[in-house]
Amino acid sequence: MDKKNKDKEFVKEITPRAQDYSQWYVDVILKAELMDYAPIKGCMVIRPYGYAIWENVQRLLDKRIKETGHENAYFPLFIPQGLLQKEAEHVEGFAPEVALVTRGGDEELAEPLAVRPTSESIICSMYSRWIQSWRDLPVLINQWANVVRWEKSTRPFLRTSEFIWQEGHTCHSTEEEAEQETLKMLEVYREFMETEMAIPVIAGQKTEKEKFAGALRTYTIEALMSDGKALQSGTSHNLGQHFARVFDITFLDQDDELKYVWQTSWGVSTRVIGALIMVHGDDRGLVLPPAVAPTQVVMVPIITKKQREEVLEKINDIAGLLPHDIRLKVDDRLEYTAGWKFNQWEMKGVPLRLELGPRDMENNRLVAVRRDTGDKEEIPMEEVTKRVPALLKEIQQDMLERALKFREEHTAEMEDYNEFCGYMLESKGFVQGYWCGSGNCEEKIKDDTKATIRCIINSHNGEVGHNCLACGEKAPYCVYFARAY
Amino acid sequence: MDKKNKDKEFVKEITPRAQDYSQWYVDVILKAELMDYAPIKGCMVIRPYGYAIWENVQRLLDKRIKETGHENAYFPLFIPQGLLQKEAEHVEGFAPEVALVTRGGDEELAEPLAVRPTSESIICSMYSRWIQSWRDLPVLINQWANVVRWEKSTRPFLRTSEFIWQEGHTCHSTEEEAEQETLKMLEVYREFMETEMAIPVIAGQKTEKEKFAGALRTYTIEALMSDGKALQSGTSHNLGQHFARVFDITFLDQDDELKYVWQTSWGVSTRVIGALIMVHGDDRGLVLPPAVAPTQVVMVPIITKKQREEVLEKINDIAGLLPHDIRLKVDDRLEYTAGWKFNQWEMKGVPLRLELGPRDMENNRLVAVRRDTGDKEEIPMEEVTKRVPALLKEIQQDMLERALKFREEHTAEMEDYNEFCGYMLESKGFVQGYWCGSGNCEEKIKDDTKATIRCIINSHNGEVGHNCLACGEKAPYCVYFARAY
Repeated sequence: MDKKNKDKEFVKEITPRAQDYSQWYVDVILKAELMDYAPIKGCMVIRPYGYAIWENVQRLLDKRIKETGHENAYFPLFIPQGLLQKEAEHVEGFAPEVALVTRGGDEELAEPLAVRPTSESIICSMYSRWIQSWRDLPVLINQWANVVRWEKSTRPFLRTSEFIWQEGHTCHSTEEEAEQETLKMLEVYREFMETEMAIPVIAGQKTEKEKFAGALRTYTIEALMSDGKALQSGTSHNLGQHFARVFDITFLDQDDELKYVWQTSWGVSTRVIGALIMVHGDDRGLVLPPAVAPTQVVMVPIITKKQREEVLEKINDIAGLLPHDIRLKVDDRLEYTAGWKFNQWEMKGVPLRLELGPRDMENNRLVAVRRDTGDKEEIPMEEVTKRVPALLKEIQQDMLERALKFREEHTAEMEDYNEFCGYMLESKGFVQGYWCGSGNCEEKIKDDTKATIRCIINSHNGEVGHNCLACGEKAPYCVYFARAY
Repeated sequence: MDKKNKDKEFVKEITPRAQDYSQWYVDVILKAELMDYAPIKGCMVIRPYGYAIWENVQRLLDKRIKETGHENAYFPLFIPQGLLQKEAEHVEGFAPEVALVTRGGDEELAEPLAVRPTSESIICSMYSRWIQSWRDLPVLINQWANVVRWEKSTRPFLRTSEFIWQEGHTCHSTEEEAEQETLKMLEVYREFMETEMAIPVIAGQKTEKEKFAGALRTYTIEALMSDGKALQSGTSHNLGQHFARVFDITFLDQDDELKYVWQTSWGVSTRVIGALIMVHGDDRGLVLPPAVAPTQVVMVPIITKKQREEVLEKINDIAGLLPHDIRLKVDDRLEYTAGWKFNQWEMKGVPLRLELGPRDMENNRLVAVRRDTGDKEEIPMEEVTKRVPALLKEIQQDMLERALKFREEHTAEMEDYNEFCGYMLESKGFVQGYWCGSGNCEEKIKDDTKATIRCIINSHNGEVGHNCLACGEKAPYCVYFARAY
C-alpha cells in the first residue's frame, strides 16, 4: 500500500467523537501527523506539523514573557538527588515520578542524578549564589526546556513522560510583589490562551490538596474540552519563602537586614496542544485558530487538463499579492485530486481554503471556505488582498466566541448534591458551586463523581447564604468543579 | 561586600590573555555573566546574557535551516540502550560518554535508557516507520535539543556534559542528493559563521580517524581562536546507508524496487559561543558582533546634578528616534558613574556606546565609541538615525575582516617537519601542508606536536610534487593542521 492510498484512508479513519472520544483524539493526532509514539514508555515524537504549532505557541508566549520584563536562561537537565530532596513537600510530590541517572560513561555515580521534573531546586541553588543585595532583585528568569515525569499512564500531549514547557522562576524582596507577579503571569496565560489559542479559561486558585508541591498558593487556568472535561492549562505558584529558607536565598535589604526572598514559579507546556485539539476539533479532524496554525491559508487550484498552466499561474500570482505575513501554502501537487486535498487540509485544520478553477477565472473571483464553519464565500479578485486577512481575523474571533458559548452552555450553577452527582457522572461540564473548605468533602466528591475542584474563583470568607455541595454546611468558597484530564 | 563593589572588581579582575589565556577565557565568561558552574559535574548554567546570545544564534541559524526546506520536530530525550547499540561504529564512538537512566519512578528499568548523546538511532527508528515510498522523500527534519556526553574534562561552552544544539537528520533517494545536502548544510554553516558571527572558517573534510562515529564522510568548519588553536565549529555528515541498513529504512522507488535511503546529519552547538569569545574578545572582555549581540547599542547619559533631567529626557528622545530593530539599552541608573558604566558595557562587549552630556547637548551632537576599535566619533544630532545603523554595519564588517587578517597572519604553508614541530609546539596557528593519507603519520604528528589534521581541503589524488610532512612520501592530500580545543 503506497503513501497515497494510505493517506486517503487516514482521512476516513477518524472515529466520530460521539462514538469514542478518546479514540477520536488519538486518531486526529496520528492522522494529522502531530505526533507519533516513540519506542520508549510514555514518550512521544512531536512531528513537524505538531512542532510547528508549538513553535507558534512558543513565539507568542515568549514575546509576552519578555514584554513583562523576564529574560530567558538555561539550567542543567540533571539535579543531584540530594538537592531535589531538600524541600520536604517538593520531594514528596515529585519523588514517585523521577527518572534517575545512576551511570555516566561506564562509572556508577556516587550520587544519582534526577532528570529534572521541574527546576525549582537547581535554580534556587544558583539564586542563593547570585543574590546578595536588594539591588539584585527582582530576579525575573524564564527557561524553555524539556522535563521528565515518570508517568504510569500516559496520553499524547496531555500526560507524557517527557514534555516541553517554559518555567518562570522569580525572586522578589516583598511578599506583595511576589503575589503580584504570580497573578500577573496567570493573567498573561489567560490572555494568551484567549487571544492566540481562542480558548476561554477560568482563572482561580487551587485547593491545598491540588496545589504545587512546595508552593504557598497555586493559581491555575482551566479550559473546558468538548467532552465536558476540564484541562488544567497553565499554573502560577506563589512559593512564599519555602524554597528561600531551604536553599538559603537571602538578600541584604535597604534597612541593612538580611532577609529571605519571596519567590514565584509558573509554567505552560505542550499540553496546551491537547487543549487546542479538544476545544476546537471536530469529526473531520483538527480546527486550528489562525494565530497558531502552521498554515493559515491553503490555496487549491481546480485543474482541468486543458487549463492547467493558466490556473497554476494565476493562483501563484494571487499568492504573491497576499500580505507576506500570512502563512500560506499553494498545493499544486498534480498527483492528488482537488477533493482529496480538501479532505487532507480539513483534517489538518487549516483555517481557510482558497479555491480557483477555470470558472472562477472567468468570473474573476476566488472561492473561500472556512474550516471552522464550512461557510463558502465568493471573493471578487480585487478584494482578495483585503478580504483574506479580514476573514482570518473573523475566524480567530468566532472560534473564541464559539468556545465561550460552548463553555457557558456546559457550566451549571448547582446546590443539590444528587443533581451534581448525576451531572458529573455524565461529565457534562463545569459546575459552579460552593465548598466548605474541608479536604473530606473534596475527597467525598471525588470518590462519588470523579470530579475535582478545578479552582476557587473567589474566597469571601464569612459570607453567608451558601452551603457546601457535599456536606451542606456553610460554605465560604465559590469553586468550579469538573472531571478533568 | 555589596553588589556594586563586587561588580567594580569584576571589571578589573580579567586576567590578561598574554598572562594566562585559559584563565582569561573563564574570567570573561564569569564576569560578563555568560555562564556559571552548576553543582553537577561538567554542567553549566547559561545565564540570561549568554542565553540571549544563543537566542540570536538560534534565530539566525533556524531561519537559514528553514529557508533550505527543513522543518523542526522533537524526538525523545531517552534512547533505549539496545537501539543505541545497533550501529556498530556509532556505539563504539558514543558508549564511553553515555549517561544511563536505570530507575524511573522507583522502579528498576528492564532496559536502561541512554540520555541522547546525539539522535541518529532514535530518529532512524522512526524514519523506518514513516518512509515507504519515493514520494515520502526527501525527509528534511531538524531538531533543537539538549544532549548529554559524559565528559572527563570539561570547559565552559567548549566541552560540557550537557549542551544545546541543533541536529539535522535527512533521508534521500540517491547518494548524490545526500552528498549535495551534506555540502549544502556545510555551506549554510560557513555563511552563517562569517555573516552573523564575523568568524571566518576553513571548510573541509575530516580524516577517517576524526570522522563521526557511523558516518561515511564528515565535513567540518574550523575557526582559529586568538591563541592560535583551532575550534571545530560545526559538522555535516554524509551517513551513506550505514544507519538505513541497520534500522531498515527502505523505500519503494519509482522503478518498483525496494531500496535503502541515503542519509545525512549535521549540527551546530552552544560551542560556537566559545568561538565568539575567543575570536573577538580582548583584555577588556567580550567584543560582540552586532548581529548576535543581545544589546547592540548602549546609551549612557553624562549627568551633572544640575542638568540631570534635561540630559535624561534628551537621551530618551534620541533612543525613541533610532530604528526600532536596533537592540538598544539606555543605562539611566543613577547609582553608578558614567565611567563605571563604560567599563561594564565594554566588558559585556556591547558593539557601540553612545554618550550624551551637557556639552554634547550644547553642541547638538552625540559621542559614539566603538567597542571593537575604541574609535570615538562625534555624530551631529541630525545624522544620528542614519549614522548609528551604518556604524553597526561597519563594525560587523570590520570584525570579520580583522578576524580574517588574524587568521591569514597565523596560517603558514610548510613542508619542513622540524619547522612544523616548532610552530605547533608554540601553537602559532594553522599550517597548510600535505599528508600521505596514512593513519600512522597522523598519529605521529599528534604525538610529536599535539596538532591534528583539522580538515582535508582538497583531495587531488595522483597529483605529484608534494610530500607528506611527517614521512616525506608522496602526499595527495592538502590539509590544515592545528592544535585544537
